[in-house]
Order: sequence, then structure tokens, then C-alpha cells
Amino acid sequence: MYNIGVDVGGTSVKAGLVKEGEIVFKNSQETDKIGGVEALANNIISLVNEIVEKCSVKIEEVGTIGIGVPGMVNKHGEIVCVNIGIKNGNLIELLEKEFPTCKIDIANDANVAALAEYAFGSMKGYNSGIMLTLGTGVGSGIIINGKLVTGAHGIGAEIGHITIDKNYFDCNCGNNGCFETFCSATAIIKYAQKLIGEGRESLILEKAKNIENITAKDVFDSYREKDIVAVEVIDRFKNYLGLGIGNIINFIDPDVISIGGGVSNASDIIFDGLEEIIRKYVVFKGVEIADVVIAKFKNDAGILGASAL
Amino acid sequence: MYNIGVDVGGTSVKAGLVKEGEIVFKNSQETDKIGGVEALANNIISLVNEIVEKCSVKIEEVGTIGIGVPGMVNKHGEIVCVNIGIKNGNLIELLEKEFPTCKIDIANDANVAALAEYAFGSMKGYNSGIMLTLGTGVGSGIIINGKLVTGAHGIGAEIGHITIDKNYFDCNCGNNGCFETFCSATAIIKYAQKLIGEGRESLILEKAKNIENITAKDVFDSYREKDIVAVEVIDRFKNYLGLGIGNIINFIDPDVISIGGGVSNASDIIFDGLEEIIRKYVVFKGVEIADVVIAKFKNDAGILGASAL
Repeated sequence: MYNIGVDVGGTSVKAGLVKEGEIVFKNSQETDKIGGVEALANNIISLVNEIVEKCSVKIEEVGTIGIGVPGMVNKHGEIVCVNIGIKNGNLIELLEKEFPTCKIDIANDANVAALAEYAFGSMKGYNSGIMLTLGTGVGSGIIINGKLVTGAHGIGAEIGHITIDKNYFDCNCGNNGCFETFCSATAIIKYAQKLIGEGRESLILEKAKNIENITAKDVFDSYREKDIVAVEVIDRFKNYLGLGIGNIINFIDPDVISIGGGVSNASDIIFDGLEEIIRKYVVFKGVEIADVVIAKFKNDAGILGASAL
Repeated sequence: MYNIGVDVGGTSVKAGLVKEGEIVFKNSQETDKIGGVEALANNIISLVNEIVEKCSVKIEEVGTIGIGVPGMVNKHGEIVCVNIGIKNGNLIELLEKEFPTCKIDIANDANVAALAEYAFGSMKGYNSGIMLTLGTGVGSGIIINGKLVTGAHGIGAEIGHITIDKNYFDCNCGNNGCFETFCSATAIIKYAQKLIGEGRESLILEKAKNIENITAKDVFDSYREKDIVAVEVIDRFKNYLGLGIGNIINFIDPDVISIGGGVSNASDIIFDGLEEIIRKYVVFKGVEIADVVIAKFKNDAGILGASAL
């Protein structure tokens, strides 16, 4: 038996035939952002049909078609993905009509990434785990007792929007002090820009040439060269990451926390001394706490995780 | 079949024979705070023996003896209850030896209170729920898919120690900005004392006579009389309660959140406008969110919840 995992992104829809945690074949199409849920269904239908044809697999041999979407899935299975122009659509219904022998399941892409790590990657073998994807924002996925926890109304696992302090700029969501305004790549860039904008000299600017072009990588690279501004930015980032992970432990005390996303490319810097910072924020002292690990998958997490839905 | 629930407190150990969510008989003893885990086991053994004798029930008719303790229960069932002098003790082993036909189970008292509300009270019929006990501190219990979630290492469900902002005083746990430093009875009292200590005039002081004696009830009573300081204190409290509940929804999105503890006696004041404040902090707008309800049980929550372990 096979599963198909579909990773719906803002620019492309990727699909893959998966057997025992390995992608056997994958294909992709440009995301149709104009046609709403019907267009997305058509994207997926043609990718799935191409897969079964090219791989000489019968559709009856595909157990589950799992789909990760960049947005919210409510408890009725309806999806809201603002950045691909879907305000409310029942994708499951459309796909079930086309593939009546397959189980169709949809989840938010951050949840799907968590599932990939849980089923096949860095959280494999643990009972409960939380995935934090530190990128443009902070995505998260929660697994408890082997099950994805997306909440009673499909609006949970938004750990990036937990308020943890006051911050000097507001979050895109309209609130102030969200975890992701301290611990995303964007947060690192903005804080470097703030310090440099205040007249501080830094290698970061040499690397980026222009304050507008600063990347998280510039900041991490400058940190390696002991640039004082970079050290200040990364120390702040790590303190808040420790605080945020401490909050997660105080709340739900998982077996493992996996860190992925672009920021995790600098895992040597991030992980150095992180446990000590986390323990500062955990209310019980001297006890066993969650393992904090680095995510295994980069680009294939979406397909693999969706296939495990 | 019966269950027995035991509520271990700092001053007394209470036990009750429970059938179908009703306490048939209850008794209590002063807590032996000197003799460690053996003394606590003896407390419980004599209470249980008295119950079965007085009620003419055979011990074989008691399915579970559940115990709520004011402290931490680790994944090996060992308890750490600093305020009753138990640093590390295997209560389960001692009780299993005495009552070999009964299932023995232990949980933290805040978790037990959550279970009482879930099994018999304000959260009955819901799938997932979170109980917040707003008293001297903020206790919490988490139920997901009908099961108590205490964490992988027994250190979860400490929502009172989630960092949510900076505060002007440190928490007892050593950190700054814990939820309970904003939303407990203690937090209300301290903030009223701070404002009055800064020279503000208030009805609160008239009621309490002395700044040291201010109670949360004094503040709520003064709020009813539109005292400006009381309004400022309660508005601050409610804003942070909304933020904290918003954090819970963004994190785990439960079906229901139940508020208990001494502060919940002023539920008319607390609940007035609370949903609007909560929605401000929930990242998804215009969606269904958790019902926020008032807890049903006061004194019997410990016995009832423990009996449902």
C-alpha cells in the first residue's frame, strides 16, 4: 500500500508517492492562486493522476492522500488559505468525489512538518513532541500520544502567536509580543536593522551591503566573527527561544521539541548553551525535561508529513 | 462498584467514597507533615479503612483509590510535595501493598480539580478542556481527548508559570512575568497594595482597614462601588486573564476553559466583557473559540476528581 503526500505552497503544489517513509516519485505544478478551492483541487487531481500513471500504481493501492496547506483547517475540514486566495472551501469533498477509494486528509503545513519529523525524522520513537519551524514566522505542530493536536476548532498549534513579553514592534497578527516577533528569522533581521539603524557599527552591514538586505545568515556569520551587534542580536534571540521553549515545557511537557526552518541552519550557534537558558524558565528545577533536537527534513517535510496524515 | 477519592492538603487529608459522581461518605484527618511519605500513607490507609467499615463496603468493591497531592508526581509515580515535607516518596507502592485489589493512582491537585470538572462538572460532555484555578497562585489541569495531560516527565500543566510579560515583582518560582503574577488573588492584592502604597485613595483601604489585610474580595467589592483604584486593578487583571486564555487557545485550542478558585467567586465581574478581551489575543479572527465557563465544585473537587482518576 502507498500513500500520497501533497504539499501546497504559495508558489507550487508538490506531490509525492510515499512508501515506508521514502518518496518513490514526486512532481509539482505552479499553484493556481486565482481559481479558489476548485483550482487547487484540479492541481491536486492532475498531480495524483500523473503519479499513479507514471509509477504504474492503481489508485486503489493508494491508502491516503494527505494534504498540507498554508492556512487554517477548521473542524469541518474547510480550509482558509488567504495567501493562495481560498477563503472557505471544502477541498476534502472535491477530492473524495474524484478518488472515492482513498482516505483524504488535510492539515496545516506546520502540523504536517511536525508529523514528518514524528513519523520519519527527529521525533521518531517519542510519544509526544512539538515542532517549531523558525523561518519568516514561527510555525508549530503538536503531537500528543502519537496524535496531531490541531485543537477543537482547528485554530491551535499557533505557538508563534503566544504572547511572551512586550516587543518594540507589532506582530503581523495585530498583537504585540508574539513569540514569533522574538524568534523568527524576521525577528533576527529586524533587531539587527534596529541596532544598526541606531548608528551601531557592525560586520552585518558589510556583509549585507545595504541595511534593507540583511539576512539571518549575515547575522549568524557575523556572530561567528564575534561581531558585538551580532552577538547582542543572537543572545536576545536565544534568550527568548529558551523562554518560549520553557513556556512549552511548563504548559505541555513534551518528550521532545524539534527545531526546524531556515534559522535552524545555524544549529551549532542556537544549541550552544540553550538547555541552560531553557531550564531557567522551567518551573521545576533539577528534573528531566524534553530533549531539544534539530529537525531532519528540509524540502521533503511537506510531502512526507502529508503522506503520514 | 465504588471509587475512593483522597484530597491531600497542607492542613488536612480528606477522603470520600464516591459512586456515580456523588460523595456517599467522607472523612478527614490532620495532615502529618513530619513523617514523610510513610505518614501520609498511614493517613490514607486509616481513612480508607474507616470508610469501608462505616459504609459496610468490602474493599474489593472499591475499584480505584485516587489521590490528589499538592505537588509534583513524576513519571515513576513518585511524589514531591515540599509543603507537606515529602521530597521523594513512592506512595503508590505503599498503598498497593495495603490494598492489593484496588487500582491506586496519584495526580497533582490542580489536575485532579480539572478532572472533577471534566467528569462531573462544568466541563462534562466536552472533549478537551483546561481548568484554571485562580487562587493564591494559578493552578491548571489539561484534558485532551478525555485524558489528563500531565506531561512526559510529570512537570506539565503549569500554565500559571508561562511567561506572558514583564511584571514589577518576581514570581515565587524565581522567574519574572509568570501568568500567576498577573492573574491570581495574590496578584490582585499586590497591585492594589502597590497603587495604595503610592498614595492613591481607595475604598479598598476603608474596607481592609490596613494595607496588609487587603483581600481580593475587598478589591472586587470596591469595584462594584466604582472605586477608581479597584477598577484599575481589576481591568489589569482581566486584560491579562484574556491574554493568558488567548495564549491557551493559540496553543492548544480546547473545547472549554473552566475558571475556578477563590477569584471565581466574583464571576459576574470577571466574565463581563471577557470574551472580547480574549478574542483580541486569538490569532484567528471571527472563528469559533473555546467556551469559557465557571467551575462547578468548590470544596469537593479534590475528592470527586481523585475518585475519577
